[in-house]
Amino acid sequence: MLSANEFKHLSALKVKKYREETRLFMAEGIKQVDEGIKSRYHCDLIVFRSDARDDIKETLHIASKKGIRCEEVRAKELERLADTVHTQGVIGYFRMPQTHAVDTNSPVLVYLDRINDPGNLGTMIRTADWFGFRDILLSPGCVEVFNPKVVRASMGSVFRGSFHQEVEVDELAELQKAGYSVVTTELEGSELKKYKPAEKTIVVLSSESHGVLPELASLADGRVKIPGVKGAESLNVAVAAGIILHKLFETGTGK
Amino acid sequence: MLSANEFKHLSALKVKKYREETRLFMAEGIKQVDEGIKSRYHCDLIVFRSDARDDIKETLHIASKKGIRCEEVRAKELERLADTVHTQGVIGYFRMPQTHAVDTNSPVLVYLDRINDPGNLGTMIRTADWFGFRDILLSPGCVEVFNPKVVRASMGSVFRGSFHQEVEVDELAELQKAGYSVVTTELEGSELKKYKPAEKTIVVLSSESHGVLPELASLADGRVKIPGVKGAESLNVAVAAGIILHKLFETGTGK
Repeated sequence: MLSANEFKHLSALKVKKYREETRLFMAEGIKQVDEGIKSRYHCDLIVFRSDARDDIKETLHIASKKGIRCEEVRAKELERLADTVHTQGVIGYFRMPQTHAVDTNSPVLVYLDRINDPGNLGTMIRTADWFGFRDILLSPGCVEVFNPKVVRASMGSVFRGSFHQEVEVDELAELQKAGYSVVTTELEGSELKKYKPAEKTIVVLSSESHGVLPELASLADGRVKIPGVKGAESLNVAVAAGIILHKLFETGTGK
Repeated sequence: MLSANEFKHLSALKVKKYREETRLFMAEGIKQVDEGIKSRYHCDLIVFRSDARDDIKETLHIASKKGIRCEEVRAKELERLADTVHTQGVIGYFRMPQTHAVDTNSPVLVYLDRINDPGNLGTMIRTADWFGFRDILLSPGCVEVFNPKVVRASMGSVFRGSFHQEVEVDELAELQKAGYSVVTTELEGSELKKYKPAEKTIVVLSSESHGVLPELASLADGRVKIPGVKGAESLNVAVAAGIILHKLFETGTGK
């Protein structure tokens, strides 16, 4: 059973400041919890609604083998803990991993420039994971990786990435000096078709509403654009990211 | 001023059944209304909150030139009409266009297979528009194109497409007989890199949770897959759509 104090504590994890203080975060939904408990992340606790028990049989089985504490709660209680309205009836609580230095052997680093929509950020993490690009750098102004909505949209990919938050442009400049080529996506860039990625690439993905940060634009070694017809004003940033990352994958970078 | 009856009428447009009966729909947000009144769609009415007046000066100017009725409403009233919580303070009401036959001169037809998330559907319409693929066929089970969330996610692209809803597989079979090659996206497909589109293509985009409808899979002339590394289970359907449509655009189809 969860105590009243534990309830308060867990509910508070919906707030960024409290997540940062406690270094804990929540993952909501069957798929997310499953991925979490199979990952290198430490799971502190799983809470679930009794009517979800059948759907999460496998999850509870793995959890019990791993010695993860599981607590059944009433529907009303789960609702209070959940971030979504239509919850699947299960939430996992995980410890944030320690931040390591950027792996400079990695052929592709993904730099996310002020992505402030959690759905987009989660989808971009999921896409990068699909292509095997697991080193994700986030600029100041990005949503936090462990925001519940980001975790959910990542469909579990958040548990496989290596994240570096609040990375300033001068840190990119350092990585550039260490051999990385910085490429941005801009409307005035050269055709993606003709783009030949360098051996080590930092690919910058900027939100469609903000554009590329000026300091980043002047740092860039290359600029690419995704071709299109006249009329539509922009692509969704997560879609643009998918096209660029697929291109990097297809040309063999990162394999 | 809007009468109480008009309020009831406009509020009811948040409901699909009422939209279908009246053939009217709403577009919320500055960008969406702007695109709408510049399009071939007929705009019946614009409502706005007084504090939004500065932001939509240009919109109101165009509307007045076109003789579109504009009504200022109080914040509370707009909230009642709006579909979003944080509204930008302006909503346009438009008439649904008449449905024409599918344009069989079009080199690319996009067939959306049971896309039931409005955000994904809107994003896919936006992406197809970017690449100039304006003929969109929707299977039964897709969200409705004129759902307010779809309209919003499309960022105005809904006003440029030509939509055919509730298109059954046997209609695709007819189009196939008329010269179209049907290609699906499947995990067991051939590499996208090696895919050479036919002169006339129907590209089928299926949701990642449902997969390809069996009848569609057996109809297909070709299957492609988006390569990735092991681990991540799937791509978001709107991201996958972006990668496939970019490929079709890049190989010259549709240009």
